[in-house]
Amino acid sequence: MTAFFEDVEVGSEVVFGDFTFEREHIKAFARRYDPQRFHIDEEAAKETHFGALCASGWQTAAIWMKLVVAYNERNAKAAADAGRSSARLGPSPGFTDLKWLKPVYPGDTLTYGCTIAGKRESASRPEWGLVTQHNWANNQNGERVFEFVATVFWERKPR
Amino acid sequence: MTAFFEDVEVGSEVVFGDFTFEREHIKAFARRYDPQRFHIDEEAAKETHFGALCASGWQTAAIWMKLVVAYNERNAKAAADAGRSSARLGPSPGFTDLKWLKPVYPGDTLTYGCTIAGKRESASRPEWGLVTQHNWANNQNGERVFEFVATVFWERKPR
Repeated sequence: MTAFFEDVEVGSEVVFGDFTFEREHIKAFARRYDPQRFHIDEEAAKETHFGALCASGWQTAAIWMKLVVAYNERNAKAAADAGRSSARLGPSPGFTDLKWLKPVYPGDTLTYGCTIAGKRESASRPEWGLVTQHNWANNQNGERVFEFVATVFWERKPR
Repeated sequence: MTAFFEDVEVGSEVVFGDFTFEREHIKAFARRYDPQRFHIDEEAAKETHFGALCASGWQTAAIWMKLVVAYNERNAKAAADAGRSSARLGPSPGFTDLKWLKPVYPGDTLTYGCTIAGKRESASRPEWGLVTQHNWANNQNGERVFEFVATVFWERKPR
């Protein structure tokens, strides 16, 4: 993700990292932002369609962001150490087709990544390009649990 | 939101509530989930495209969830107090067309709500219907800052 726009390869896949959803982290997020019984109360969760405590979908999404930022920082540091400059993460105007496909239960480890689906130059912002990412997260059983399509501004090479 | 599916009126508007984004809350969320400089560092943020510290888009989204849960709990309590039963919030399979239209700065107060855009019965889950909501948040100047389209499972009247 620290490649500049010109070097982003359509069709390539990037793995951002892994995250294990601990029970207390699931509950802490949910108490602040999504205090539904299946996210904060193990006993009550058993009687719901999920069958057990599971993570807020918004936490699954926020962890995507966390791992992308960490991935980018690692790469920026590696580039700096090698004396190369690197692209900054640009703003996102939004995204589409977000799906929570399966519940995320305590102890589940998700691997997050994306496939680069397309890119184009920005007509309005010549210093940025636009890259379309198909983002995904799979659990430890290889099941896709989360996905969405993002179009993000991507820094172009300084001219 | 505690009306049962049968009583949900297409075209109606619901206001979930308000939320003021305090500086420290913006930073606390961002440190956990989105530690980009324009979300955690006032000085560094001045040099970015946002011009100042602003909230993570994922926090703007998570607060939508928080206000929906609180709205629903208030209505469920009011219904229970009046001796009426009420619909539970159902799971969401996902959503689409999420847009962060303007930055959310410290001190901004957003009003969150939705317009009911459509509804249909669920073929696979006869106890639930599906409702399409156009969700939105406006700031204190009446500017739309956030929107997305959600299709959510909505409990039908017990039969």
